[in-house]
Amino acid sequence: MTAGSGAAPEVLEELNRLRSSIDNMDAALVHLLAERFKITQRVGELKATHGLPPADPEREARQIARLRALAADARLDPEFAEKFLTFVVAEVVRHHEAIASERPLAGSPVDGRG
Amino acid sequence: MTAGSGAAPEVLEELNRLRSSIDNMDAALVHLLAERFKITQRVGELKATHGLPPADPEREARQIARLRALAADARLDPEFAEKFLTFVVAEVVRHHEAIASERPLAGSPVDGRG
Repeated sequence: MTAGSGAAPEVLEELNRLRSSIDNMDAALVHLLAERFKITQRVGELKATHGLPPADPEREARQIARLRALAADARLDPEFAEKFLTFVVAEVVRHHEAIASERPLAGSPVDGRG
Repeated sequence: MTAGSGAAPEVLEELNRLRSSIDNMDAALVHLLAERFKITQRVGELKATHGLPPADPEREARQIARLRALAADARLDPEFAEKFLTFVVAEVVRHHEAIASERPLAGSPVDGRG
């Protein structure tokens, strides 16, 4: 059967309303992520140009702790918040590797958290 | 060496400015994700209560196509946007499974896209 057949019109109406909010949030998330990557791109260039160490474990630990605390306050699973950061960072590392491969100073392992 | 030693003060200043923007965006992302999960939680309850089919492949295809187009406009890799949706949906499925396991009508496989 197709989605919603058999359900009352007011139920389908609520489902559509909720889905429209999900779509709005997904658009906002994608645009925020696009901006975040613009900034980490700049961080990668800065580090490569000035020979700065690509990884900063202390900053990374602070970022994770802060995001977990923000998540807990917002009733989001802190484990998920940390997994989310790890997921985004993996993509940033991919970008930084692309930058590093074009520059002689940045041949060392890269960091994605910015 | 510690992060930034050896670099000019103005470089470290720019790095700190960029990191502060990354932190602001991460906070925004976490809060948006928290709201998104509130809504998909409600979708899961609605579907379970009214015996609606958990998966809707047509909606899923539309969501992916739309996010990829939004990403391309925002200069975000469309592949990454799709991976991101898949990542979030996997978490929603986990939540829906928890809801479904508490309700007799919702024993069928669950969908995470809402």
